[in-house]
Amino acid sequence: MSQRRFFALGTASQVPTRSRNHNGYFLRWDAEGFLFDPGEGTQRQMIHSGIAASDITKIFITHFHGDHCLGLAGVLQRLSLDNVPHKIQIFYPKSGQEYFDNLKNASIYHQKAIIEEIPIEEDSVIFEDKNLTIETKQLEHSAESWGYRVNEKDSVTMLPDKLKEAGIKGKNIGKLQKEAKLTIDDKTFELKDFSVEKKGQSFAFVMDTRLCDNAYKLAKDADMLVCESTYLKSETNEAHAHGHLTATQAAEIAQKSNSNMLVLTHFSQRYPRIKDFLVEAKEIYKDVVAVKDGDFVDLPKGK
Amino acid sequence: MSQRRFFALGTASQVPTRSRNHNGYFLRWDAEGFLFDPGEGTQRQMIHSGIAASDITKIFITHFHGDHCLGLAGVLQRLSLDNVPHKIQIFYPKSGQEYFDNLKNASIYHQKAIIEEIPIEEDSVIFEDKNLTIETKQLEHSAESWGYRVNEKDSVTMLPDKLKEAGIKGKNIGKLQKEAKLTIDDKTFELKDFSVEKKGQSFAFVMDTRLCDNAYKLAKDADMLVCESTYLKSETNEAHAHGHLTATQAAEIAQKSNSNMLVLTHFSQRYPRIKDFLVEAKEIYKDVVAVKDGDFVDLPKGK
Repeated sequence: MSQRRFFALGTASQVPTRSRNHNGYFLRWDAEGFLFDPGEGTQRQMIHSGIAASDITKIFITHFHGDHCLGLAGVLQRLSLDNVPHKIQIFYPKSGQEYFDNLKNASIYHQKAIIEEIPIEEDSVIFEDKNLTIETKQLEHSAESWGYRVNEKDSVTMLPDKLKEAGIKGKNIGKLQKEAKLTIDDKTFELKDFSVEKKGQSFAFVMDTRLCDNAYKLAKDADMLVCESTYLKSETNEAHAHGHLTATQAAEIAQKSNSNMLVLTHFSQRYPRIKDFLVEAKEIYKDVVAVKDGDFVDLPKGK
Repeated sequence: MSQRRFFALGTASQVPTRSRNHNGYFLRWDAEGFLFDPGEGTQRQMIHSGIAASDITKIFITHFHGDHCLGLAGVLQRLSLDNVPHKIQIFYPKSGQEYFDNLKNASIYHQKAIIEEIPIEEDSVIFEDKNLTIETKQLEHSAESWGYRVNEKDSVTMLPDKLKEAGIKGKNIGKLQKEAKLTIDDKTFELKDFSVEKKGQSFAFVMDTRLCDNAYKLAKDADMLVCESTYLKSETNEAHAHGHLTATQAAEIAQKSNSNMLVLTHFSQRYPRIKDFLVEAKEIYKDVVAVKDGDFVDLPKGK
């Protein structure tokens, strides 16, 4: 299985339908498991997609409308019930602290999970380790809403044959990699001659918003852009009024931001066929999929 | 369609499985719609069973473990979203007021539904109108848990032929029905000679509990007893320790209380086959069904 795979747990906006659960998305990224916007029923949708509570390492809430957060209560309880041993970081709009608290204390259970609450209130890098940065930017919706972006850091892959040829070995390899230069007996070697650059992958999550600058910024050069498309372009005015996007607008974001792949989701119940979203978006942007519940999409490998 | 029909929206205890949603039950009773213990995902399960939010008139929560209440958040929001015009009464343990409040305020929405909160704290009749009484009795579980019982009042069906024969007509029929006696020209008529008694139907809902007197009392002569059977008898000790029943114990309650029909539900995820519950219960009590999600059972008409 790919180590970087996006799962659509639910694809309905506002209310579930027969074929679509409330929103919910899981991004498996190496040893990390990112759960985005768990709507009601996410606990069960995870079972259908073969994802365990213990697979979750971080949870991201874009905003506190029910379809993007009501499943948090069940997920938090499941983390405790399953004795998940590692810490879970949860990122959410600070303005919704009351709702977070209520969801965390929605019923009787033994709160054993190790939860780190990370309320957000400004466009910023909210996580960084040696491999990744994660950033958030505010969107424009009827409730305060935040998009997220996961960036793998760029790295270099050393070329063993070239190193051997130049007689560089042992600790010197690490030194060259770390300092970009290495001097032995008055001879200077440069990292770029012994390695190839490996561009980090990136994933952008743009949920409930109307068109706004930050949607483009989050999506800039992203390998995968997951974007809401609540409406079709025939309802462009309604989409704007309610702080949502059409499939056409999502495709415009993907195209103008030079995204590598667009994943459409968050469909209004008024549209029974998701194919209509796909057809509409494809008029503008080629590399697009419209997901249904249970679908997964592997993160594409660069351009 | 029968006007008195019980729907199993979800049949899982504690955690959902691939085939079983969290608990949730709906009882259609003439113009009333009683929703019992809406676990997570009940909003969507209702769609699968063809039940609209506007069909709900009363909601009953036995206790505030997540599998019996997490779906309340979504249901309350749906009542508002759908502009349900009538008042909804919600009965729940007073000791769980905090959880009720948190579920009601779990996310951002326009609270438009007309909700009457009716916290319960003692064995009592909690509702009465001209047709029905509804009562609650406390059960024995690891959290404070309450069973419910719906009783149709007994009534009489008048016999037109006999009334005609005796020359009783017009307002005198109503008078005879109301006062049980009627005197015309020194002649006295008795209601029992001009009518047949129609026994009211009854429905008992016994959820999370170990064996206790009140479970028997709630089930006494019930036309339909919906009873948890989390475990099989091989796990009798575990059932007792966790405040639950086995299929055998549920059948014993049905038999000793002279229930007319037993509906088994609330199955632990450890048991993949519900047939095992049915087989075990049938050894003790004949009129039993074990429901799966989406099943419905019509209320049987007396004995």
